Amino acid sequence: MNYDLPFIPERSEKPRESGLTMVMDKGLSLRETEDFLSVAGDYTDMVKLGFGTSLVIPHLKEKLKIYNDAGIKTYFGGTLFEAFVIRNRFDDLLKYLAEFGMKYAEVSDGSMFIPHDEKLEYIRQLSKEVTVLSEVGTKSDDIPLSDSVWVDYMKTELEAGSWKVIGEARESGTIGLYHKDGSANRSLIDDIITNVDIDKVIWEAPNKGQQVWFIKLLGANVNVGNIAPLDVISLETLRLGLRGDTFYRFLPEDLQPNN
Amino acid sequence: MNYDLPFIPERSEKPRESGLTMVMDKGLSLRETEDFLSVAGDYTDMVKLGFGTSLVIPHLKEKLKIYNDAGIKTYFGGTLFEAFVIRNRFDDLLKYLAEFGMKYAEVSDGSMFIPHDEKLEYIRQLSKEVTVLSEVGTKSDDIPLSDSVWVDYMKTELEAGSWKVIGEARESGTIGLYHKDGSANRSLIDDIITNVDIDKVIWEAPNKGQQVWFIKLLGANVNVGNIAPLDVISLETLRLGLRGDTFYRFLPEDLQPNN
Amino acid sequence: MNYDLPFIPERSEKPRESGLTMVMDKGLSLRETEDFLSVAGDYTDMVKLGFGTSLVIPHLKEKLKIYNDAGIKTYFGGTLFEAFVIRNRFDDLLKYLAEFGMKYAEVSDGSMFIPHDEKLEYIRQLSKEVTVLSEVGTKSDDIPLSDSVWVDYMKTELEAGSWKVIGEARESGTIGLYHKDGSANRSLIDDIITNVDIDKVIWEAPNKGQQVWFIKLLGANVNVGNIAPLDVISLETLRLGLRGDTFYRFLPEDLQPNN
Repeated sequence: MNYDLPFIPERSEKPRESGLTMVMDKGLSLRETEDFLSVAGDYTDMVKLGFGTSLVIPHLKEKLKIYNDAGIKTYFGGTLFEAFVIRNRFDDLLKYLAEFGMKYAEVSDGSMFIPHDEKLEYIRQLSKEVTVLSEVGTKSDDIPLSDSVWVDYMKTELEAGSWKVIGEARESGTIGLYHKDGSANRSLIDDIITNVDIDKVIWEAPNKGQQVWFIKLLGANVNVGNIAPLDVISLETLRLGLRGDTFYRFLPEDLQPNN
Repeated sequence: MNYDLPFIPERSEKPRESGLTMVMDKGLSLRETEDFLSVAGDYTDMVKLGFGTSLVIPHLKEKLKIYNDAGIKTYFGGTLFEAFVIRNRFDDLLKYLAEFGMKYAEVSDGSMFIPHDEKLEYIRQLSKEVTVLSEVGTKSDDIPLSDSVWVDYMKTELEAGSWKVIGEARESGTIGLYHKDGSANRSLIDDIITNVDIDKVIWEAPNKGQQVWFIKLLGANVNVGNIAPLDVISLETLRLGLRGDTFYRFLPEDLQPNN
Repeated sequence: MNYDLPFIPERSEKPRESGLTMVMDKGLSLRETEDFLSVAGDYTDMVKLGFGTSLVIPHLKEKLKIYNDAGIKTYFGGTLFEAFVIRNRFDDLLKYLAEFGMKYAEVSDGSMFIPHDEKLEYIRQLSKEVTVLSEVGTKSDDIPLSDSVWVDYMKTELEAGSWKVIGEARESGTIGLYHKDGSANRSLIDDIITNVDIDKVIWEAPNKGQQVWFIKLLGANVNVGNIAPLDVISLETLRLGLRGDTFYRFLPEDLQPNN
């Protein structure tokens, strides 16, 4: 902090187990990656190379090195995992991860149907090689999961070896944890909070209103994901009560509006 | 201009008293700041380090130096002023401004209630140290101000020492000067124009439609604010009638569509 | 590709005649231009300096050189053509193009009315100096063109010398090819596909949903335009079936969901 103020919530420090910020990189150049980290590196814990972008971008090894050197955990988006699995190429996925020295990987079933037993088996297999994050929720609203199934999936995936479970929202923030208009699915989220260790859950929250909603509910050190690189500093001010939306969240009783 | 065309409105030149563009910086890196200025420096008059970002970003002194060297006025967002005031730390705010050599500051009451007499007193106090911009309008629509109160606040804040008064719209452009759908509150804006020196007013206009609306109403040299760094060049083309939306705005009668 | 996967559609290679990606540059700095190309240069065929930005930005020659050196075709936005024409300065336009060594130019009538015979004549004239792209559709929905007029305009403009014809959508993607809500005007698009060589058509598709819609309809090597620089990598994953939205588009029958 460039100046000390009282009543600023204490933030966890890197390497964090809670208060995580997971950023989605959709194709930054090497220099843009350096720029991003020069400002927001201390506030960024993980970077997901979104969906299949890792297959397409040039200079992948150099990019991963920049993130690694800055102490940022990197992994490829879950859609890439699914792109290998739908082609019956799980072994190739392991080779791809090894070739690029990946230490983390995401398991998801957002774009294709995978029987949950099979998904758990993928988590077990991958956990032998890398640290696994697994995502719950689909990218389509054709067959929504019931709240109790969400909770069950999160718990069994953690038991199968996932380091964290991620609540799906897409990049748009209009599905899974949220209703179509982007507002939070309160009953689902309450069920998760009641039944799953919240330090183990990363909430995809791409839009400011969603970040505000989770910070108001769970405090400065909530885990959020799918954050755009340019939004990390803004998110940090929300976490600290330094933006209008969370201005009163961390102030003591006697400074609240109606006192 | 890279080529001379007739019927391009004459723009004011730096240092401008009207035709101001105020940009909101939410956390650019040093290199991104240089990049932004290398393109849009001549068209940018002021940069606000939005809300509490100045407390959070690294390299604050270096960033301020880049802006100062380019002849850009810088100040910290009004929410930061309020974050000090709600904690009864106005003296600390003065120290913070002095420590970073700030020559401008914003006074606002968008996130907290400040009796207007008290706000005027803050403007008077701060004016002794720095040049003050003050913002009128709240970030919440719980208790909207009447049009006549807006006008009264703007006039008295200018009398108390504000260099310019800013009409609130948030970063989203959906409050204060605008209705919830982002369209302009015409009767409020008419009242302000009729009663306040418009060179003294900066209209927050984060969205293109709002920039177009004000340029059509008040011409190329209207003061606008909360512009995103990447939008400054686009705004400049709107000011000059070089984009579809303002294509006919500055053309003479005989070149208008129905002639 | 950083790893070989089966069932990835084959993409055309530069210099492409189909599968084109046309990007809109609204004022990137020189370094941002380099950054953009370092990631997405191979996937970018043309860059339009949007509307009148070419008149306003500094370092225009240097920017054009960066694009040229990377094998990217550049041209100035159609609104600039119209800004010269409305002022009866077509000769000056030729001088401006020559002064900056432009090899491509856009002819459009989105902001002003030009009798179609006259537009064809501009295409013929300009074709003697540069390669012409012409745009069909207006920026206003006051007088929408009928589907048959769209088709007729596209055919006659190609006959008059246009290298490609562009379907208008604006930067917002809410007009011309699309309804006001951004969804595709299916009957218009069907009429164009049936009657015009689709390799000759560039579809403005600024929003992700629109890019997905055209890729699903016309495949990986559809020509799309008005793409934001930061979206080119994401577009490329959509073209290759490496993002959720087009995940199944290029997979064989036996890998489809209901098999």
